[in-house]
Amino acid sequence: MMAAMKLGQIAELVNGELRGDPQLPISGAAPISRVGNSQLTWLTDPAYREQVQKSPAAAVLVRRELADLTKPMIICTDVEMALSRLLNAWAPPLPHPPVGIDSRAVIGTQVELGEDVAIGPNVVIQNGASIGARTIIHAGCFIGEQSVIGDDGLLWPNVVIRERTQIGQRVIIHPNAVIGADGFGYLMQNGEFKKIPHIGRVRIEDDVEIGAGSCIDRAKCDETVIGRGTKIDNLVQIGHNVHVGPHCCLIAQVGIAGSTELGHHVMLAGKVGLKDNIRIGNGVQVAACSCVSANVNDGEIMLGVPAQSKSSYFRERATINRYSRLWDQVRELMNRVEQLEAANHSKTC
Amino acid sequence: MMAAMKLGQIAELVNGELRGDPQLPISGAAPISRVGNSQLTWLTDPAYREQVQKSPAAAVLVRRELADLTKPMIICTDVEMALSRLLNAWAPPLPHPPVGIDSRAVIGTQVELGEDVAIGPNVVIQNGASIGARTIIHAGCFIGEQSVIGDDGLLWPNVVIRERTQIGQRVIIHPNAVIGADGFGYLMQNGEFKKIPHIGRVRIEDDVEIGAGSCIDRAKCDETVIGRGTKIDNLVQIGHNVHVGPHCCLIAQVGIAGSTELGHHVMLAGKVGLKDNIRIGNGVQVAACSCVSANVNDGEIMLGVPAQSKSSYFRERATINRYSRLWDQVRELMNRVEQLEAANHSKTC
Amino acid sequence: MMAAMKLGQIAELVNGELRGDPQLPISGAAPISRVGNSQLTWLTDPAYREQVQKSPAAAVLVRRELADLTKPMIICTDVEMALSRLLNAWAPPLPHPPVGIDSRAVIGTQVELGEDVAIGPNVVIQNGASIGARTIIHAGCFIGEQSVIGDDGLLWPNVVIRERTQIGQRVIIHPNAVIGADGFGYLMQNGEFKKIPHIGRVRIEDDVEIGAGSCIDRAKCDETVIGRGTKIDNLVQIGHNVHVGPHCCLIAQVGIAGSTELGHHVMLAGKVGLKDNIRIGNGVQVAACSCVSANVNDGEIMLGVPAQSKSSYFRERATINRYSRLWDQVRELMNRVEQLEAANHSKTC
Repeated sequence: MMAAMKLGQIAELVNGELRGDPQLPISGAAPISRVGNSQLTWLTDPAYREQVQKSPAAAVLVRRELADLTKPMIICTDVEMALSRLLNAWAPPLPHPPVGIDSRAVIGTQVELGEDVAIGPNVVIQNGASIGARTIIHAGCFIGEQSVIGDDGLLWPNVVIRERTQIGQRVIIHPNAVIGADGFGYLMQNGEFKKIPHIGRVRIEDDVEIGAGSCIDRAKCDETVIGRGTKIDNLVQIGHNVHVGPHCCLIAQVGIAGSTELGHHVMLAGKVGLKDNIRIGNGVQVAACSCVSANVNDGEIMLGVPAQSKSSYFRERATINRYSRLWDQVRELMNRVEQLEAANHSKTC
Repeated sequence: MMAAMKLGQIAELVNGELRGDPQLPISGAAPISRVGNSQLTWLTDPAYREQVQKSPAAAVLVRRELADLTKPMIICTDVEMALSRLLNAWAPPLPHPPVGIDSRAVIGTQVELGEDVAIGPNVVIQNGASIGARTIIHAGCFIGEQSVIGDDGLLWPNVVIRERTQIGQRVIIHPNAVIGADGFGYLMQNGEFKKIPHIGRVRIEDDVEIGAGSCIDRAKCDETVIGRGTKIDNLVQIGHNVHVGPHCCLIAQVGIAGSTELGHHVMLAGKVGLKDNIRIGNGVQVAACSCVSANVNDGEIMLGVPAQSKSSYFRERATINRYSRLWDQVRELMNRVEQLEAANHSKTC
Repeated sequence: MMAAMKLGQIAELVNGELRGDPQLPISGAAPISRVGNSQLTWLTDPAYREQVQKSPAAAVLVRRELADLTKPMIICTDVEMALSRLLNAWAPPLPHPPVGIDSRAVIGTQVELGEDVAIGPNVVIQNGASIGARTIIHAGCFIGEQSVIGDDGLLWPNVVIRERTQIGQRVIIHPNAVIGADGFGYLMQNGEFKKIPHIGRVRIEDDVEIGAGSCIDRAKCDETVIGRGTKIDNLVQIGHNVHVGPHCCLIAQVGIAGSTELGHHVMLAGKVGLKDNIRIGNGVQVAACSCVSANVNDGEIMLGVPAQSKSSYFRERATINRYSRLWDQVRELMNRVEQLEAANHSKTC
């Protein structure tokens, strides 16, 4: 699937220092555990040095500090970036619908379509929606009334965007994501739930990416917001009125309950849950499978169910681990007190 | 996005007591942290009184007990209900397909369509299905053979309903939900899984709402049931043969394993997991991210992984927190016993 | 919904030993808690013997060891398999699109379609894709460029398969699943995320089943693999470069982070999370709602957040439970030491 390239070309492409034959043909790249003998692998962690050395890999992208392998190498200041550049060069063109509007798309009235949009078959765009220049909308997507998608957007198949959603520039949305469904809000009256109308909207800023099957609910009466540059993985749930700041990273199956606010550069690992109506500070990191139920200050690292700060969490773990030692000590004390009592008794007799 | 309204009109609409100029123009509503100076906000929790007072809000919906603000106010017996009524009044019409059958819908044979149904483009309705009066089915939905949807239903885009599903009156289903997929059941034979056919169905009672991307599996040989008035949030998983009672509330990313039964008015917070084949009593509440693995009696409040009753859970937490004090006491005892031993030794010498 | 059958016919069908009238009419099957008086139920667990005996069930599939009921019975060596065989016999035909290509399907150039494929309305198959013989693709599915689906496959509605995905024989994919979306990988540069292209693919081996709404991401530069015979439930997330071995069972809402490897016959219960870059050995079982953050050896049973081996987990639970007893003992020791000190003091005075 990848075009062949010579090692010298690769070194030039990634701006790395070549140690080996520039004519060596390379057929692709793979992680160390699965690399083939015509492929390139990479090494950033000293723990894998031996495995890389013994692997069939034809060549290695490597940090200078680890560049003592006997294999052909390209020494890079930033191995991850070098690899990314290489993958960009090798990437086959993405199979998007051609520029234009497929004859099987259904376009409402007063729809604004920017220059060079590409609309696939069976796309439905409701009245008054607006699609920016060069935006690509794959088959089966639904764009609700008066929704706005900026320039250079990309919607993979079967994405649903409900009415009045605002989406910025260069936003990527993966298949089957749902933006702008009603928030989950009811009044309880005489033992029955009455639906609260959700007349607000979702606003997604520039350069956001939203994973497959993820859901971002519309606000009750103002906005649910995803900040600029934030990346959201698959099957993530974002409740009504949530504000996610810029440059956050929400890994798969995260869930954020209503009206919670995240600062910038927040990192939520997989399956993290956040309670409603709390504030997560800038730069906070939450470990996988944790459940946060109170405000978190800037820069904290949180983990556990319920989540505690890292120091408090590890103190508690240590406590539990020391427990059996404590038990031993109490048993020993028992014996010593018994002997003291016996001695005391014999003396007083 | 909202029509302007005068404060006096709003007071009348929500049946509240006006304190302020009835001619004051109001442009919309927003929660206290984001309210603008032409907008209304609301106050129910005394903790926010100061913030509301200092906010730019033009006016406030407020409980009588808190009605000592210097801002224009509308005093309401039930603030939440007043707000809901207001949102209803302000709600723009929902962008549904027009009454009729879109020419790009695919309708099978012997399909019964009630009066004034609205079927969007690219909807597929298989043979023998039945759609009740005034039910709205958005673009890209799939209704399987012999499935029945009641009157006044609403299916947002790309919902999939498999064959023989029974859906009651006034049911709302959000985009990309899947009703009636095969349950997850296999026989293990010689190290390989053999599929068990799932010939049962899903039955959804009146007034149920089902969130975006949620999945409700069909039963092995009888029914998976969602009781009347139950509300299900996004990305919820309900396994085969589960019976959810009436008026339950299942928040986002809940998962219920096969054959488990819920009574009425059960409240499962976000990400709760329920084991298979257990019984959750009436009125049970389970805290977010908890995992319930045994029967729960009526009215219990459960939390933790695995979930315990509230009292048992907090006892355990207190236990862990007291531990370091215990450790100190044991250390003190050690010292005192040592002194006693030394004293004893010196006396017996 | 099920054809009536006589008890004698059923006994023959499941190859069981009949105790009762072979002419007894049976209208269907249901689990013990909901069985009707013309239906069959089953009994494998002695705990339910009394309930079965008292139930209205017309007859019972039963293990020989429990075959002392006074009801009509069919004694089976494997009750589960007997039931499965019966359900197979009773299963109504599945409502698939007819063999052929629906006129509303959109088929690209150089697409290979095997013998007797059935392609539903609004299916989109991009250029160069290949669909095996007798494979059924329901309405609204999207098959990306150069993707290959083997023979006898079944895709329910609205499944999205991105480009260059490899799918084996007899693979079943439930509605709204997404295969081959971009993995979640970014470089952080000057506080902003830069997308790493994902030029790898997903490869799904024979006899795999994938649940509704589940997502399997494409690899960065090689493959994400689902091994032969593995069964995946609904709303499961499988990250880029994950390798799931053969005959694994991943229950609903499981999440597996990038590059993690599973051996064969791994069993992950509902909501389990696996960290990235770890190795889960053959035959490992992980309890529901657990979070595994390190390698696990073959055959281990893991539970908890973070997951521990079963023995370590229960030791820790016992520790916490014994704690209050320990507290009592320390208090008792305190008293005894005080008395000793008092006695000691009085003697030395």
